Amino acid sequence: MYQTPRLALEGERFTAAYQIRGTRRRALETAREICIEQTVEYPDELIRRPDIREQIIGDVTRFEALDDQTFQAEIAFPIEVAGEELPQLLNVLFGNISLKPEIRLVGIDLPRALSRFFRGPRYGRNGLRERVRVPARPLLATALKPMGLSPQELAQLAYQFALSGIDMIKDDHGLANQVFSTFDERVARCSDAVNRANRETGLSCIYLPNITSRADQVMERAETARDSGAGGLLICPGLTGYDTMRAVADDDSIALPILCHPAMQGAFTTHRGSGIAHGVLYGQINRLAGADGAIFPNYGGRFSFSEGECRDLLDGTLRPMGEIKPIFPVPAGGMSLERIPEIVAFYGDDVILLIGGDLHRRGLDLSHSCREFLQMVSRPSSNTI
Amino acid sequence: MYQTPRLALEGERFTAAYQIRGTRRRALETAREICIEQTVEYPDELIRRPDIREQIIGDVTRFEALDDQTFQAEIAFPIEVAGEELPQLLNVLFGNISLKPEIRLVGIDLPRALSRFFRGPRYGRNGLRERVRVPARPLLATALKPMGLSPQELAQLAYQFALSGIDMIKDDHGLANQVFSTFDERVARCSDAVNRANRETGLSCIYLPNITSRADQVMERAETARDSGAGGLLICPGLTGYDTMRAVADDDSIALPILCHPAMQGAFTTHRGSGIAHGVLYGQINRLAGADGAIFPNYGGRFSFSEGECRDLLDGTLRPMGEIKPIFPVPAGGMSLERIPEIVAFYGDDVILLIGGDLHRRGLDLSHSCREFLQMVSRPSSNTI
Repeated sequence: MYQTPRLALEGERFTAAYQIRGTRRRALETAREICIEQTVEYPDELIRRPDIREQIIGDVTRFEALDDQTFQAEIAFPIEVAGEELPQLLNVLFGNISLKPEIRLVGIDLPRALSRFFRGPRYGRNGLRERVRVPARPLLATALKPMGLSPQELAQLAYQFALSGIDMIKDDHGLANQVFSTFDERVARCSDAVNRANRETGLSCIYLPNITSRADQVMERAETARDSGAGGLLICPGLTGYDTMRAVADDDSIALPILCHPAMQGAFTTHRGSGIAHGVLYGQINRLAGADGAIFPNYGGRFSFSEGECRDLLDGTLRPMGEIKPIFPVPAGGMSLERIPEIVAFYGDDVILLIGGDLHRRGLDLSHSCREFLQMVSRPSSNTI
Repeated sequence: MYQTPRLALEGERFTAAYQIRGTRRRALETAREICIEQTVEYPDELIRRPDIREQIIGDVTRFEALDDQTFQAEIAFPIEVAGEELPQLLNVLFGNISLKPEIRLVGIDLPRALSRFFRGPRYGRNGLRERVRVPARPLLATALKPMGLSPQELAQLAYQFALSGIDMIKDDHGLANQVFSTFDERVARCSDAVNRANRETGLSCIYLPNITSRADQVMERAETARDSGAGGLLICPGLTGYDTMRAVADDDSIALPILCHPAMQGAFTTHRGSGIAHGVLYGQINRLAGADGAIFPNYGGRFSFSEGECRDLLDGTLRPMGEIKPIFPVPAGGMSLERIPEIVAFYGDDVILLIGGDLHRRGLDLSHSCREFLQMVSRPSSNTI
């Protein structure tokens, strides 16, 4: 008699939830196709071995109608299929079916047997608060811009921001290693400027240079940042790949907090019936990949996210995932100071407020704008802790 | 008098073409917003410095209606903004605007002053043909599957395929480093099997293991593949990041041909009004990132690409880009042997035909199926050279 080999040794499964458009009959077929497409990718009728059928292919564990044309399917995959690696986990969750316009990944649920392979954010919400020594109120962040300024000019801006009480100063995500602002010089000067301001203020502002770069240089830039005294890092995982960010986050010799920026991630979320839901992509996947805070365009700014999508995103930053810490939502994208009370009411105090252009728009006295920024979050009404 | 600094030293620009949906007035505004969003990301009215305005921000160099609601804008960006790096080039082309559902990137034109920073594919069409010693006819490829087979079983399959005249045998893209098929053992056994078959046949079939993996392991897997005698590599740039593939392609100590697989790339192309056009993503960007052949789901298979999109993709594999070589289109995704004449008529002889499941569907005698496959492309009618 044929002995079924043990392929999936632990017998545990992780679950992905998909929204599928179509008739009920077609959506259920699609759900069953996902089980095969994301694992064996092989004609169903040719899979004769019971071990593969039972221990490799996904199972539809739940299927329900959301409306006449939209259904939600939960599919359970054996954890062994994901091979203990983030790229292969993402591949099982959404690799081939990224090519199908009727399917949207809306949830991930990992058992501890799988989530233990991912350290996630090194700091998370609490760790980052300790790092900048701000226990309760929303954190204040801004960006060094515009592109084209020299390292000296950017450092001068950074100094002013840090003197004026900003908690986190990140490179604009378009600052890379350009002739008009090379990475090494910019990072040295801006780190120095922020650390000098900290000595004057007694505060713990951190500067986060953008280390998004060539695959063979990202880690080197992280080391340069650390050696220059930068207090954190900015990465665009849509440009570097998620696991590149994960590798930086996991490296004990770097050990700096990470903000991630959504450049090139947008195509996954702009169409509601396909791609990946905001909570999964900007929340859960960025967390799995080690970000301590995820930047995204807030509703009502110059991008297209809705309030509902931002609420889902917020939920993705903190929904339980084994030991993986909650991270900060970082709403951005053309925010103004006036909107802060509304934003804080929406996200709560565990939020990083990233305001760029609007601080400059208020006239030449940046420190005045920054003080206004700080006052907006220091009111008793916005301190709920 | 204020001396305008020279930020963009060479004065050369690269051009991106975008299709934009909306009224003419709104689409033109969007085009102008792209110029700023992708560079300085700063309020227009605050950009007072002429050097930044003239040498950093993009310019709309062409704007025309495609229909009442669709317009095409060409935008020229200073090459210095891209910083000589693929991630930053991609960032300028589509970083932030990936978050905008009304914009689609449909073309890239790089001057030699920029394309010289990218080596592109090491082999390209001609080099890959030399490597497998097939001067003119379409190349035959298949995948080792289904997931769940042991390395011994996969190697046995590889041996049969190689004996039967297949030119390229790739890992299924879901084969990573799982307990039931570890990377090292699979690659050793499959490489041996294919090389043993080559000694028997006198042919030059290559085995391409999937090196998609953790950021800190991709290069190690490429080295293992090389040391095991694999003749090529498979990478999913949507999972690893494009520049990870570029780094492998550029490494002279690896020097193996690369096929790329579209896992996780699909979200960029599934909606016609947004994302990135097929020719740009699967053609131009994969070429810039060093693939020698780009796998994609052919029209009429189990995915959703149209004939027009596949034609655009084909064009993207060969449209002029400085010294960057043309690469092979690799239509796949549920193809059957019967469709080969049509596929070859569509793509021409410079195509890699990737047939997976259908070779197995034809009964247990794989070698018979493979001989049929070879006969389909060896007919005089399909040999136009």
